[in-house]
Amino acid sequence: MNKPFSKSQITEPTLLLNQKICLENIGRMAEKASKNGLIFRPHFKTHQSHQIGKWFRLAGVKKITVSSLKMAEYFAEAGWKDITVAFPVNILEIERIQRLAAAIQLNLLAESLDTINYLEKNLRSSVNLFLKIDIGYQRTGIHPDKKEKIQNLLNRIDTCTYLQFAGFIGHAGHSYKARSKQEIADIHTSSTDVLKELKKEYQGKFPGMIISTGDTPTCSVMDNFSGIDEIRPGNFVFYDLTQHAIGSCRLNDIAVAMACPIVAKHADRNELIVYGGGVHFSKEKLTIPTDNQTLNGVVVHLNKTGWEFTNGGENYVSKLSQEHGTLKVDQQVFDRYEVGDLIGVLPVHSCMTANLMKSYRTLEGELIARL
Amino acid sequence: MNKPFSKSQITEPTLLLNQKICLENIGRMAEKASKNGLIFRPHFKTHQSHQIGKWFRLAGVKKITVSSLKMAEYFAEAGWKDITVAFPVNILEIERIQRLAAAIQLNLLAESLDTINYLEKNLRSSVNLFLKIDIGYQRTGIHPDKKEKIQNLLNRIDTCTYLQFAGFIGHAGHSYKARSKQEIADIHTSSTDVLKELKKEYQGKFPGMIISTGDTPTCSVMDNFSGIDEIRPGNFVFYDLTQHAIGSCRLNDIAVAMACPIVAKHADRNELIVYGGGVHFSKEKLTIPTDNQTLNGVVVHLNKTGWEFTNGGENYVSKLSQEHGTLKVDQQVFDRYEVGDLIGVLPVHSCMTANLMKSYRTLEGELIARL
Repeated sequence: MNKPFSKSQITEPTLLLNQKICLENIGRMAEKASKNGLIFRPHFKTHQSHQIGKWFRLAGVKKITVSSLKMAEYFAEAGWKDITVAFPVNILEIERIQRLAAAIQLNLLAESLDTINYLEKNLRSSVNLFLKIDIGYQRTGIHPDKKEKIQNLLNRIDTCTYLQFAGFIGHAGHSYKARSKQEIADIHTSSTDVLKELKKEYQGKFPGMIISTGDTPTCSVMDNFSGIDEIRPGNFVFYDLTQHAIGSCRLNDIAVAMACPIVAKHADRNELIVYGGGVHFSKEKLTIPTDNQTLNGVVVHLNKTGWEFTNGGENYVSKLSQEHGTLKVDQQVFDRYEVGDLIGVLPVHSCMTANLMKSYRTLEGELIARL
Repeated sequence: MNKPFSKSQITEPTLLLNQKICLENIGRMAEKASKNGLIFRPHFKTHQSHQIGKWFRLAGVKKITVSSLKMAEYFAEAGWKDITVAFPVNILEIERIQRLAAAIQLNLLAESLDTINYLEKNLRSSVNLFLKIDIGYQRTGIHPDKKEKIQNLLNRIDTCTYLQFAGFIGHAGHSYKARSKQEIADIHTSSTDVLKELKKEYQGKFPGMIISTGDTPTCSVMDNFSGIDEIRPGNFVFYDLTQHAIGSCRLNDIAVAMACPIVAKHADRNELIVYGGGVHFSKEKLTIPTDNQTLNGVVVHLNKTGWEFTNGGENYVSKLSQEHGTLKVDQQVFDRYEVGDLIGVLPVHSCMTANLMKSYRTLEGELIARL
């Protein structure tokens, strides 16, 4: 932690990680969960790293969320013993499920009778089963109005040997469309009300059941979690420009930035061409509503201790192809850089960028691997 | 090649490769190049695979294009001896350049005096250098009107020990916006005219120089390449829905499809939820202008010999999140599938999907690795 940030060994697009900011993000969310008496089960799909997992362990985390069985295997190998796979069970991976169920406390999500029957028939170890409820996102999950379906599934689970009903789980992914605190608050209320209603109805019969929710926007912005048992935010570990646009974080809370070599300059249109394209950033875009500008990243200056923001001006990634990035910059930024320099870019969606980059370089120079 | 396609071992999102279609795509383009007396230097950034590289070798290909020095290293290891890195030189990777230049015929692209000076100072082996010209795409390259700059760079290259002037190179990436044969033809004419003019001006002084162009749309659709020396298409090896929308290929020429497990069904909105999201497909979208519909893939049925198209109806990927895909389907398709079945999806952009998937599964069951 004492070695100053050295850019001299960076020769190709590299995902920088500011460990201090990352630890602060983890600490802040862990504290909020603790204050509110919530089970904090962070989603590890954003970082997918054993090393970063250890930082969560230091913050007291013992239960985690992942989005695939492969990810569950990866973290089980690192000693995690209580893992929720927050994705409707893929029955084709029954062998992985059997192995994991025998080794750890595995928590799965179902939303159909077929899946429940298949699991019960094929499991030989106990699994906690959540019913996945559509709490407004309309991606997947059982609509809460389908009372009869919910009742039927619970009746069936109740007869199972290997399935224990864990509770109701939802993901308010529609919070990503919010652009104000009020919008986030409204989604928080409406989505958690759905789960609270279900809990009221069924906790008599299943006293151990919980309700689990918690995307990064609502968990970052809200303070009142009464009635909720568990939260599962993930992206907050790094944050990104999308979360900033939603209002979940300050720009200073973003813990990752790409370092990209400049390979060409175009003075006639104030553009810098960098080595860093869709295969590094992903092609996720963000539209800034104030000026209807669409961007793939925001330019920052790399310095000895990490990165700093440009002074005013609009400096952003205007286009990405497979390996090329086009940076629209003001005159001051344009003049500051030469071909062969490194320049920084904050990503639009850190989950997707980290997934493509496959490793992190801390500002102390450490290389952190991931799945 | 005799084992029938078996889906039984596929349990997670898998990129299927129809080798027969792929070989036909390679053969057709190789034949077109040969008929027109062109150097055929295919771009390998789409497949990035030693094995698929061998199929090109069988079609007589000896020279290739890549988009990064890492890719050049990967293919040099497999015995490729003449490689063009079609990306403005990243001088930070000088050590890779030195190693490659010592081992193979390396062809690089420059567009600034700084880069040329840096290369000359740091190279100890000979390299062929192209000047990168902006032939209308406006991403990077020297604008052809900058006669004085071009002349100055050529004067400088002429004094270099390690740099040989190879010619002028361009990429008509704006052909991807074309949606008719006429639009492609217009771009083909205007972009190649730029290079032909330059050749006329400089071939007296540099008799060995060539002009190199050739994106997949123009190379697929055009028949007249007179005056051009070399083509470098890449995507045609697989094609995809974008190329189909441009008019570069038939749907039957698309050589890759994703196989995705179905994990949930939503009868009230005719949606299937699959395991297969942005980390598998990439989030590339395609807008079909006829009905202003935006999609992330087209649904196909997997069968014993590969895949087949659905009977009419609009069956497409309407949304992707990190691991989930939402398929909008008609009643016939909806009723045909159960949770736990595999369904096929043609990708919007095969380069990006293949980059994420990292391997191919042929219909004969062979696993093909890539960089």
